[in-house]
Amino acid sequence: MRAAIRILGIDPGLRRTGWGVIDVEGNRLVFVGCGSVATDDRGSMGERLVTIHAGLSRVIEDFAPAEAAVEATFINKDASASLKLGQARGVALLVPAQAGLPVAEYAPNQIKKTIVGAGHGEKAQIRMMIAVLLPKASPDTHDAADALAIAICHAHHRQSAVARAALLKAAGA
Amino acid sequence: MRAAIRILGIDPGLRRTGWGVIDVEGNRLVFVGCGSVATDDRGSMGERLVTIHAGLSRVIEDFAPAEAAVEATFINKDASASLKLGQARGVALLVPAQAGLPVAEYAPNQIKKTIVGAGHGEKAQIRMMIAVLLPKASPDTHDAADALAIAICHAHHRQSAVARAALLKAAGA
Repeated sequence: MRAAIRILGIDPGLRRTGWGVIDVEGNRLVFVGCGSVATDDRGSMGERLVTIHAGLSRVIEDFAPAEAAVEATFINKDASASLKLGQARGVALLVPAQAGLPVAEYAPNQIKKTIVGAGHGEKAQIRMMIAVLLPKASPDTHDAADALAIAICHAHHRQSAVARAALLKAAGA
Repeated sequence: MRAAIRILGIDPGLRRTGWGVIDVEGNRLVFVGCGSVATDDRGSMGERLVTIHAGLSRVIEDFAPAEAAVEATFINKDASASLKLGQARGVALLVPAQAGLPVAEYAPNQIKKTIVGAGHGEKAQIRMMIAVLLPKASPDTHDAADALAIAICHAHHRQSAVARAALLKAAGA
């Protein structure tokens, strides 16, 4: 019997950060939990980042994932918006790293391609595929659904990543 | 006798985050400490953010500042660079907010204008003015010098900010 690997996916955002937890056992995926951390837009930037940090720390405490994956979005048009998203994303990368988890990053197109087989899948297509892959999941926000998609993406790519790391290690030894 | 207010200035950056601490008593400024937190660029993004978080947390523990100020830079040309800077900046805003400090943000031009009296002061001019205003300071990096400039900028603006907040509170009561 092979042990399951628990994966935390995070879709960072200043207003709302989505999270999704799944277990992976070979090719089998099992839904564990999902949700989102919302921040009060009347709060200061520092206060909002503290809310994201506390919310994600709580998720790691509650579910004890072994690996994490974060979406690597950036906004091309607006440097100021990229900076704000980057601030939320910094906290989303920090929290699992503070807990000692390896943190993978995936570009949005890579996530869509893994889930729906094409680089430009629509939100509705992604939600449909999540319903097929994780029938017990009922994400209540787009952010939670996207976070589950990120976790599924990592489940598909982590084995080749682990194999590659082992090969490199063997080649170096 | 008026109590001194201790201010922490932070110049965030992924490779190197500068910090500077000063005491303000009326119009008098006293240098307390400065330095920078460097990250290993061979580390993962998460590990580098953990280093910044740990370094700034240590500074707050050691110096117990009452207020913090962070430079609000963004890079206009490159959304990807803005995102990376944003990630470091998110951690720089998070750490003092986690410690319960109010965190002010100042644009680079506002900082230069406060220190050298013009919006486009050169780095060398800023360092010269820091030597005049804080004769005991000897910042060993540009980042530490910039962090002291941010702390000085906050020292000049915090009184009007505090007065404005009191007025707003009185008007609302």
